[in-house]
Amino acid sequence: MQPAAILESALYVTDLDAAEAFYGEVLGLERIARVEGRHVFFRCGTGVLLLFDAGATSQPPAPGARLPVPPHGTQGPGHLCFAATADEIARWKAHLEARGVTVEADFEWPPKPGEAKGGRSIYFRDPSGNSLEFAEPKIWGI
Amino acid sequence: MQPAAILESALYVTDLDAAEAFYGEVLGLERIARVEGRHVFFRCGTGVLLLFDAGATSQPPAPGARLPVPPHGTQGPGHLCFAATADEIARWKAHLEARGVTVEADFEWPPKPGEAKGGRSIYFRDPSGNSLEFAEPKIWGI
Repeated sequence: MQPAAILESALYVTDLDAAEAFYGEVLGLERIARVEGRHVFFRCGTGVLLLFDAGATSQPPAPGARLPVPPHGTQGPGHLCFAATADEIARWKAHLEARGVTVEADFEWPPKPGEAKGGRSIYFRDPSGNSLEFAEPKIWGI
Repeated sequence: MQPAAILESALYVTDLDAAEAFYGEVLGLERIARVEGRHVFFRCGTGVLLLFDAGATSQPPAPGARLPVPPHGTQGPGHLCFAATADEIARWKAHLEARGVTVEADFEWPPKPGEAKGGRSIYFRDPSGNSLEFAEPKIWGI
């Protein structure tokens, strides 16, 4: 047995309103759920991006809760990378900079044997300081 | 513009050897990279699961580094969910318990209008305490 896919990826944010604006408006993701003070969720391809307030999710479920979701929650900057083509990465960089988002790093990975280019990554931050990336799937042979 | 997919999802672990054994042997994921003291990476479907030691990744890149990956790293239990069918979830539960992994929660989500079942989730922990889940994609309408 082997998991076929990642369904949910999570990041923790310190300001849900700022996160919703950034992921929804700057990155253009489709919001699918929000619970005030706890989380905002977005659809991304065949997966879901969960943005949580760790102050809420680190509380254990109430005894006898109908949906006893176990507690979790981190502090500090996490990381997540979106897939993009080389053309899309160039357009994302221009889009982010036009919206005042600093592109913190921009480089090509070393090429694999027999390839001309290894694939490009750009890195930037969400409003909570999480390290986000756009990368070509070829960096992983995907 | 909208990101088409999540390429990399990250969790932070306190013991890379224990993480490699758990994700590779208990969950059966394919290891694609390891850098001693820093990370171990696994392929999962069309994505990659990155397991980092935050003590290493929270260090900024050296000045002039060829690959200036920005620093990141969290403390505390993160969350990630793998996609699975209802049949697979039943088998994963038996598999995890046979390997001594506690299934911390196991429930059906409320059904959406017109559906008989909302979809099942099971929750367990990796050796570093991250909250992992198997869930049916139908819980998100996927």
